[in-house]
Amino acid sequence: MSLIVAKFGGTSVASPERIKNVAKRLAAMRDAGDQVVAVVSAMGKTTDELMGLAAAVNANPPARELDRLLSTGEQVSMTLLALALEAMGYPAISFTGRQAGIETNGTHNKAKIVKVHNERILKALDEGRIPVVAGFQGIDANGDITTLGRGGSDTTAVAVAWGIGADVCEINSDVDGVYTTDPRVCPRARKLDAVSYDEMLELSSVGSGVLQSRAVEFAKKWGVVIHSRSAFSDKEGTYVKEESPVEQAVITGIAHDTSEMKVTIRHVPDTTGVAAKVFSALAGNMVNMDMIIQNTSLDGATDISFTCPASDLPRAKEALAGVMDEIGAAGIDVDEDVAKVSLVGTGMKSTPGVSAKAFRTMGENNINILAISTSPIRLSMVIEAHEAQRAVQVLHTAFDLDADSVFEETQLSAEEIADKMKKGR
Amino acid sequence: MSLIVAKFGGTSVASPERIKNVAKRLAAMRDAGDQVVAVVSAMGKTTDELMGLAAAVNANPPARELDRLLSTGEQVSMTLLALALEAMGYPAISFTGRQAGIETNGTHNKAKIVKVHNERILKALDEGRIPVVAGFQGIDANGDITTLGRGGSDTTAVAVAWGIGADVCEINSDVDGVYTTDPRVCPRARKLDAVSYDEMLELSSVGSGVLQSRAVEFAKKWGVVIHSRSAFSDKEGTYVKEESPVEQAVITGIAHDTSEMKVTIRHVPDTTGVAAKVFSALAGNMVNMDMIIQNTSLDGATDISFTCPASDLPRAKEALAGVMDEIGAAGIDVDEDVAKVSLVGTGMKSTPGVSAKAFRTMGENNINILAISTSPIRLSMVIEAHEAQRAVQVLHTAFDLDADSVFEETQLSAEEIADKMKKGR
Repeated sequence: MSLIVAKFGGTSVASPERIKNVAKRLAAMRDAGDQVVAVVSAMGKTTDELMGLAAAVNANPPARELDRLLSTGEQVSMTLLALALEAMGYPAISFTGRQAGIETNGTHNKAKIVKVHNERILKALDEGRIPVVAGFQGIDANGDITTLGRGGSDTTAVAVAWGIGADVCEINSDVDGVYTTDPRVCPRARKLDAVSYDEMLELSSVGSGVLQSRAVEFAKKWGVVIHSRSAFSDKEGTYVKEESPVEQAVITGIAHDTSEMKVTIRHVPDTTGVAAKVFSALAGNMVNMDMIIQNTSLDGATDISFTCPASDLPRAKEALAGVMDEIGAAGIDVDEDVAKVSLVGTGMKSTPGVSAKAFRTMGENNINILAISTSPIRLSMVIEAHEAQRAVQVLHTAFDLDADSVFEETQLSAEEIADKMKKGR
Repeated sequence: MSLIVAKFGGTSVASPERIKNVAKRLAAMRDAGDQVVAVVSAMGKTTDELMGLAAAVNANPPARELDRLLSTGEQVSMTLLALALEAMGYPAISFTGRQAGIETNGTHNKAKIVKVHNERILKALDEGRIPVVAGFQGIDANGDITTLGRGGSDTTAVAVAWGIGADVCEINSDVDGVYTTDPRVCPRARKLDAVSYDEMLELSSVGSGVLQSRAVEFAKKWGVVIHSRSAFSDKEGTYVKEESPVEQAVITGIAHDTSEMKVTIRHVPDTTGVAAKVFSALAGNMVNMDMIIQNTSLDGATDISFTCPASDLPRAKEALAGVMDEIGAAGIDVDEDVAKVSLVGTGMKSTPGVSAKAFRTMGENNINILAISTSPIRLSMVIEAHEAQRAVQVLHTAFDLDADSVFEETQLSAEEIADKMKKGR
């Protein structure tokens, strides 16, 4: 008998029919002798619709009122799931974030969970009921409703799993696990049986959007085992947990990300303190710079480039406008057509030559590398966006990640794949 | 300076645009120097949609969970209205039923308000804010969310007005007041400046659906003045309050109701205790009998007819099935095509001959009366449904209620009017 927290996202509860299917899944777990707690997101696009309504009446909705509004979405789905379970004869009880004891800090719209008061959930389990918890929300110390930001339901699920000492936290979604790379981009992608927290974090942060980074961080910190699996099939997915002692491949997966842009500041005088001025202005305006490239100085001036998420671009331009004159630069260029391709693997730590092999592979395929950054378990390369798919494919083969069979659902055209990649998927 | 509670129904807050218009109304009241508390229903058809979702996952949703689900509708509209006010520069604060201090009994889906804890609303007013209260909901002594039943937001508004000692409770809706009769049925209907609580109750209970009966009962009990007016125009509507001492017409208004059915039990033995058996079975099964007609006995048996709301018919049949054999009746007939037309007026108490005049009018127009019931200020007649419109019109004229001008918005065909009447409007 296991104690399982099972999270179902918006797509899995988008209609009464799907909610009934989720109820059947939970019922089957109970029938198999497990104890189970469900965590649900709002139905389908509810959160977006509520945001749209708020924006239509107030261009700058105060965060506190907005959180109250958004929190109603999960209150609907949690109640419907509890009703569906009751209809099948399985006693259930729904809990808002408040009732589930999810205590957060006071940062509305992006609150962080600080404590889980587990009494009510444990009591419901003792009574033989299936607790259904609203994801994405909690209350702060003042008793005000807070929300955890996009994808916050994953974090709720991990926090609840930690709070009640669950054996595993299932994240059920419309993907059936973590792959060596996006199967739609590389048809020979393989589903992984397990990845370590650190690998998952590197994969998440560079564009493999299966799990929310914050949820994985939380799981790593508190040792919660995550099982990422399909909400629509019974097949095993991918476990995210501490590194397993068994032999590992050098590279676990390849991620790609086209949501960043490259910004170049032209003809910056190569004087002490100029770069510092630029980067402190950017950091001060909340621009998340990723990679920074400074070319060799020619005639006392140089070009400085950096990459940042496209959403940070307005703030980047604002910050730079304030210092351009002062530093005497010639202007800025923005290149939207870049992609970042990242090799991720704990095995990199103990295996020399990964970078050399990666660069050689890119060179042999005439793919130009614009910038490079590394971590102990990741090697990222910025390239031109139209090369991204080919880069993923040649690296996937070069690092022995190819599956024996071709991913059956991949029948997208090159244009469709490029479009999906462009959307930062 | 007045203290005003202003309630806006689902139609008035059905879209962001309409919510902004409601905000403008409230802002204008503040600008005129009044203090104002808003009470809102759920947007448009939200409550129906939530009920539909619940029914789709559970044919018999437990009342407690259903109340939690339904209460989210007003939480959305209240937040959006507060956001709209804030955007216009008017400090606002939204309150759920719980936060507004609406304490009810524990009868889920049909809870009754037992107390209004006014502290938070008064504090918000003191701080110069516009409190926006979720209608239709409260909490019971266990802290569980309850809802007040259909149209419960009117009751919330009256209860809040009582709780904070407001000067008037505005009920803003898509009708601009109380008319002598439905203007779509009788184009010479007149809007009334004022009606008494008792008249309004009689009009509500017999099909004039402008205000919820429960809200009027509450207002009568606690002396809250209601102002029924249009949400979409600034014109004065109709005040509902204690009888005014000025001279009154004999008849204030004429209501009609086609939502009832006539049930006839054929050939009931005319023995002591038989009728009692029938009616206690019906009452025991929660059938709201309105009028009862027992024909003269022939050969030791009689037909017993009664009217009841169409929604009670399944329960009525169930109750009768249990006693038919026992009492030895021949069977039951159901006549759906009946209508009830009611004359209402406090003036009836002091004016003899109202019934005689009404019956004479019906006779002169060849309208057959199937059953009659009376109260001190009401005379109701059951007739065949297809005669209802003509009956209202001839009575309206006979009792001097006709306006000088014809109601301008009435250009419905006879079929459209009949259809509207059939829907119990």
